[in-house]
Amino acid sequence: MAEFSIDRFVDRYAARAAGMTASEVRALFAVASRPEVVSLAGGMPFVQALPDDQVADVARAVLAEHGDVALQYGGGQGSVGLRERLVMLMAEEDIDADPDDVVVTTGAQQALDLLGKLFIDPGDVIAVEAPAYVGALTAFGAYQPRFLPIEIDEDGMLVEQLEQALVRGERPTFVYTVPNFGNPAGVTMSGQRRRQLVALCREASIPIVEDNPYGLLRFEGRAEACLRTLDPENVIYLGTVSKTFSPGVRVGWALGEQSVVQRLVLAKESADLCSSNLTMLMTEHWFSDDARWRGTLAGLVETYRSRRDVMLNALEEHLAGEATWTRPGGGFYVWVTVPDWLDTKALLAAAVERQVAYVPGTAFYPDGRGANQMRLAFCYPTEERIREGVARLGSLIHDETELYRSLGG
Amino acid sequence: MAEFSIDRFVDRYAARAAGMTASEVRALFAVASRPEVVSLAGGMPFVQALPDDQVADVARAVLAEHGDVALQYGGGQGSVGLRERLVMLMAEEDIDADPDDVVVTTGAQQALDLLGKLFIDPGDVIAVEAPAYVGALTAFGAYQPRFLPIEIDEDGMLVEQLEQALVRGERPTFVYTVPNFGNPAGVTMSGQRRRQLVALCREASIPIVEDNPYGLLRFEGRAEACLRTLDPENVIYLGTVSKTFSPGVRVGWALGEQSVVQRLVLAKESADLCSSNLTMLMTEHWFSDDARWRGTLAGLVETYRSRRDVMLNALEEHLAGEATWTRPGGGFYVWVTVPDWLDTKALLAAAVERQVAYVPGTAFYPDGRGANQMRLAFCYPTEERIREGVARLGSLIHDETELYRSLGG
Repeated sequence: MAEFSIDRFVDRYAARAAGMTASEVRALFAVASRPEVVSLAGGMPFVQALPDDQVADVARAVLAEHGDVALQYGGGQGSVGLRERLVMLMAEEDIDADPDDVVVTTGAQQALDLLGKLFIDPGDVIAVEAPAYVGALTAFGAYQPRFLPIEIDEDGMLVEQLEQALVRGERPTFVYTVPNFGNPAGVTMSGQRRRQLVALCREASIPIVEDNPYGLLRFEGRAEACLRTLDPENVIYLGTVSKTFSPGVRVGWALGEQSVVQRLVLAKESADLCSSNLTMLMTEHWFSDDARWRGTLAGLVETYRSRRDVMLNALEEHLAGEATWTRPGGGFYVWVTVPDWLDTKALLAAAVERQVAYVPGTAFYPDGRGANQMRLAFCYPTEERIREGVARLGSLIHDETELYRSLGG
Repeated sequence: MAEFSIDRFVDRYAARAAGMTASEVRALFAVASRPEVVSLAGGMPFVQALPDDQVADVARAVLAEHGDVALQYGGGQGSVGLRERLVMLMAEEDIDADPDDVVVTTGAQQALDLLGKLFIDPGDVIAVEAPAYVGALTAFGAYQPRFLPIEIDEDGMLVEQLEQALVRGERPTFVYTVPNFGNPAGVTMSGQRRRQLVALCREASIPIVEDNPYGLLRFEGRAEACLRTLDPENVIYLGTVSKTFSPGVRVGWALGEQSVVQRLVLAKESADLCSSNLTMLMTEHWFSDDARWRGTLAGLVETYRSRRDVMLNALEEHLAGEATWTRPGGGFYVWVTVPDWLDTKALLAAAVERQVAYVPGTAFYPDGRGANQMRLAFCYPTEERIREGVARLGSLIHDETELYRSLGG
């Protein structure tokens, strides 16, 4: 037999595969997995708060009552019973929806991939927040768009920047946004910005993809109306139970016009035939017991709020004057900006050396920005670990600052 | 607000979305779902044979022992424990594999989609059997290839046709085949054809994608070596537990060289982040009890063999002289060829009228062939229903033949 090079198929990959490279988040998960490292990197929900025994009861009930369905193939759109529950969940955020307009996906991540597949031709422009959810950049990126980054401030997307881009002649295929407690910035779009964005996109006939994984993880204050509620016809809405229940069931969904939903169902069937009937039925049953799911969610929100407070206090204690950060009203993340001369990607090795990890900011931009930013997650580590992790980070940045100044910086 | 057309986004879809249309199988599932219709259409495994209580025990054990893992996000490649079990399953078919070279997918369907995403540029040539698995045509089709159909006979793919195509200058990006008890034809590739195919593709540096969902559903005789075994370096192998255990857990996999596996993991993460830890752990546990999984599988094979016999006998009784059909040595399907003047797609409405359904042959060709063919599935209906369904089909075709002759055909 002939000899082969290490990558036998290197000349055979599609052009789109050239952009598929291991992300910074990946490299990081590996280094930060040692128990002595406080990981403020990963966005894992605190599933330890779920009552395992009650989840096991749900699994047993589903298999006893619907075993032949649970273990069989399902329909591409997802079961009606689950879609009715998801409509109920959306009603919690004042979204009026019909189960026929919902397609169940393998987490909301699959909805991002399917939307990319349906909408993005190579070279199409996709408008995203800067910084944006890294998984959306990856999912859309596989279809070779050009990203149009729109900056954010504490009130969310700077809609004026999008308007200026339209004036310059940009024609985005869609605008992607995480308006509530966004990943990574932890920022929420103000009511005024929402109305501005919806009006602008309607005027310009540009669909909006509204991704709302964190909306029900609110720590304080009143919710702003969802974009979907402001303009049901022009907004494709994405949800997930990964944060309100469990990411282990892999249940997300898209809500859209029938024309979009029908195409999403075809794309879903082409991608993986159907979601798991077993985990769909478990999710439906979980959300059928009102006291149980609300109680579990309230407990999670309480835990996350308290961890957020601990993180903000620790940042104040250890990084005041040396960095700035966002103050999220919900969700999982604080976004930290350090002085311009610091490179958070270069600094990561030293951080892990000091047993703390974060995600460098550049991961969240399509254009190399964010070198002096980092994402800190407060969702998973205990309060004590958060305090310790932020303290380690503070001492690292303090030492780096001293060194920089001693070198005449 | 302005008025909108029914399909608001009609001008926004990607070029690849133009090819995404509802399949013939879909329309059929709808009409054939009434209980009085004997459906010989759908390829649903007979999950009623699974011991629900034992599956529930597995779910409870997984949640009790590994609840925090089962309900959390997992890695994109799939858990090591499951991959070790899948390697063991492959060893049942004499495939020598390393867990590092396996990536877990959402059914084997997702592996088809991810391979399409990784390998297919618009216009690339993909060689497929004619007829081929409709889900592969759909999954690859989304990436806009040109299909090169290679005909089959009772010994599987006519490798000479592929060779002639290469001589003519065709350069397929890969060859896709279901060598064991193929869907839809129920045909198995002979040992000689396997060696021919592997040698030809190696010589021409064309990767082979070997899809083997039915290999362990063998009714008689000895297995031919898998293509993967004949040439591990040049064959990407796909498996699934949908037929040996349950499609409800959505566990399939791809086995390939590290360079391919690493790209598949990235593509998987982009597509849906990870598979369900819960159903991966359940599958791992299921296949950890040797007596249980082997006993369940043996029972399934016995049921399918008996149903296959009933279908072949009923075809002999009701369609001898009016049609020809394959004699599958395993799997789910019999492939029936009726006289040229019959159009099985046009005939389907009359068939459903007579309370029997099948899948018209054209669904399985990329080029409109198969109008006088149909797929009959024996996996799901009871023996009595199979007899009744084939009898109805026989009487329909008999009546159509009478009518055709009376009109001077």
